[in-house]
Amino acid sequence: MTELRTRAPAAAPGAGTLLRLLRDGRPRTRSELATVTGLARSTVTQRVDALLASGLIGPAGEAVSTGGRPPTTFSFRPDARVVLGADLGATHARLALTDMTGVVLAQECADLDIALGPGPVLDWVIDNGRSLLEAAGRGEEELLGLGIGLPGPVQHSTGRAVNPPIMPGWDDFDVPGHVRRGLPVPVLVDNDVNIMAIGEHRVAWPAASHLMFVKVATGIGCGIVSEGNVYRGAQGAAGDMGHIHLPGSGDRPCRCGNTGCLEAVASGAALAETLRAEGVAVHGARDVVELSRRGSVPALRVLRQAGRDVGEVLAASVNMFNPSVIVVGGVLATAGDHLLAGVREVIYQRSLPLATEQLSIVSSTAGESAGVIGAAVMVIDHCLSPENVDMLVSGA
Amino acid sequence: MTELRTRAPAAAPGAGTLLRLLRDGRPRTRSELATVTGLARSTVTQRVDALLASGLIGPAGEAVSTGGRPPTTFSFRPDARVVLGADLGATHARLALTDMTGVVLAQECADLDIALGPGPVLDWVIDNGRSLLEAAGRGEEELLGLGIGLPGPVQHSTGRAVNPPIMPGWDDFDVPGHVRRGLPVPVLVDNDVNIMAIGEHRVAWPAASHLMFVKVATGIGCGIVSEGNVYRGAQGAAGDMGHIHLPGSGDRPCRCGNTGCLEAVASGAALAETLRAEGVAVHGARDVVELSRRGSVPALRVLRQAGRDVGEVLAASVNMFNPSVIVVGGVLATAGDHLLAGVREVIYQRSLPLATEQLSIVSSTAGESAGVIGAAVMVIDHCLSPENVDMLVSGA
Repeated sequence: MTELRTRAPAAAPGAGTLLRLLRDGRPRTRSELATVTGLARSTVTQRVDALLASGLIGPAGEAVSTGGRPPTTFSFRPDARVVLGADLGATHARLALTDMTGVVLAQECADLDIALGPGPVLDWVIDNGRSLLEAAGRGEEELLGLGIGLPGPVQHSTGRAVNPPIMPGWDDFDVPGHVRRGLPVPVLVDNDVNIMAIGEHRVAWPAASHLMFVKVATGIGCGIVSEGNVYRGAQGAAGDMGHIHLPGSGDRPCRCGNTGCLEAVASGAALAETLRAEGVAVHGARDVVELSRRGSVPALRVLRQAGRDVGEVLAASVNMFNPSVIVVGGVLATAGDHLLAGVREVIYQRSLPLATEQLSIVSSTAGESAGVIGAAVMVIDHCLSPENVDMLVSGA
Repeated sequence: MTELRTRAPAAAPGAGTLLRLLRDGRPRTRSELATVTGLARSTVTQRVDALLASGLIGPAGEAVSTGGRPPTTFSFRPDARVVLGADLGATHARLALTDMTGVVLAQECADLDIALGPGPVLDWVIDNGRSLLEAAGRGEEELLGLGIGLPGPVQHSTGRAVNPPIMPGWDDFDVPGHVRRGLPVPVLVDNDVNIMAIGEHRVAWPAASHLMFVKVATGIGCGIVSEGNVYRGAQGAAGDMGHIHLPGSGDRPCRCGNTGCLEAVASGAALAETLRAEGVAVHGARDVVELSRRGSVPALRVLRQAGRDVGEVLAASVNMFNPSVIVVGGVLATAGDHLLAGVREVIYQRSLPLATEQLSIVSSTAGESAGVIGAAVMVIDHCLSPENVDMLVSGA
């Protein structure tokens, strides 16, 4: 089992600390770096040389002289490497090439059934990753790493799916191991809602201290970003809001085996079922959205009620965890503001004034790119963290 | 307005980094400290001297020589300073003197009505703090700081209560300012449930990554410790579980102005009201506990149901935030395991297997001392943090 490496060798600390500072984009001199970090001047000089050799930083002109030859400044080079981010959904895949700040350079999508199994799906990622690199004129040696979001529970530390309900053949499959045989770089895996939360946070709410991203689609899930990091909880199961009990839901059976789960009532699949029972011809979540766009009153009604149901569950989390932003995304959130209106209605009614007075409840800004951007940012933050950057630099 | 100082001057970093390492109790040589931190040898020597002068560390014998004079090792001295922790309840106050690991050296309690207002109540803390110091033979100059828990919402950054419902005269009162006129040390304030969560975590579950401490007493609240720190949320309102809506609760009016809140149904005050309506003569939470100890069937029944109601609200948080430990405390939890049994019943029924397979749901271990220990630990962690310790050392 391949565990992510999270501790650097103690022998060469320092480069990561310097890079953490420099990632803000501001140029600094060796002397400034030594003063701010407390590292020895000789250590700073060594580490700056190593970072220059790796290309992660470059000279950025001269500082103002205080007498004598003016000292050189150095700054982070976000285009020194590129990153691949993949968002694999139930039936649709998206892949992006980004720089080291998560800015998308090129993107590729395809209809791709996750149930084809890990081999064909991950080979699509590898093949299209290579094509994106080539089209952008970048070599594989410039690839920092690859991030993947999967539509099911993932053990983040190993990159393996854990009993994923809609992904036959994926259970306990070594995703990073397979991908690395095609693209030999660090590969990180997380569930799709966590990477969407990371992407949305980076693109639209970088200063938000506590963000919850709710995806309402065929299923319902939640990704939580707390103080800039994904909140995973003790077993990595945090954010599983689809199976929270919704009282008064009529105890409709859920695919998890329990009854009355939010997902059994308010997901795209559940809304389609409700509409079919009323004689409306719909297959799934996208049909419900399509109908609502054409002004179908039953579709608008079930969307609004789904928003209230999601809001009922979220209201408790607002009191308990006091987020600053709730982002509502997923395909059902693309049908105008009906879902969002229902969410807002219940949260503002049910939560305490102190918890809601500065709470924003909004639609996704990053939209369909939230996942690929988040997958790339996950890899960037990992590879450029102080614990890991030394490895990157000494290997350069 | 006095804000807590959270950033150290950039001029003298390093002592805090060294102390953070040494707080684990293991002795280390100057050379080991330089290797692990990457700080310059000259910096380490300077900082070790400053820490020695402050008394926070001391020589701890000689390391094994590798040839030549064996180098001296240094270790943290938890008895170099003492700390005061106060837990102020609605009608009862408790104060403890601890060392710098939170071990209680002496303790004092009294019946004290918080509604007397901040002057008399805080003067009790100051007077008894001085007495505890004197009885322990410690001078005021040895006092590291003082932590206070209050039974209401607190703005932690300023130490002021914010619209506390049961604390007339306390709203926006400058608690640290008043206390520092009597005891001129750092004073930190938080709400009582947060400090109980910190104390319980330190005493009983130091390795737990995500702990929720639920206090079920006259009111209901929750303190959350995530990765060793209190989780406060965006406005510091996290953990307000008493006012989460409990569906099917018959919409009983709550003192917050809303209806159907958990606290309106499952708090000690609510249980007493329920029993009175059935003709049982009870005044408050402590009477309910007393009755249950004598085997009163109505008292046992309402306690068990209160546990289920608390569990219903917690089950959603278990799915959403995946804690590793839930501690049930507060006076209603002291009446045998009736409350706890109800909590467990609903959580194990309603939450997903992945979220509960390694979840412990237990009674408080620290018991009535959880609050004072947590108040002291809050001060210790603040004053000895890398950001603040330099201030402490340069002032020594």
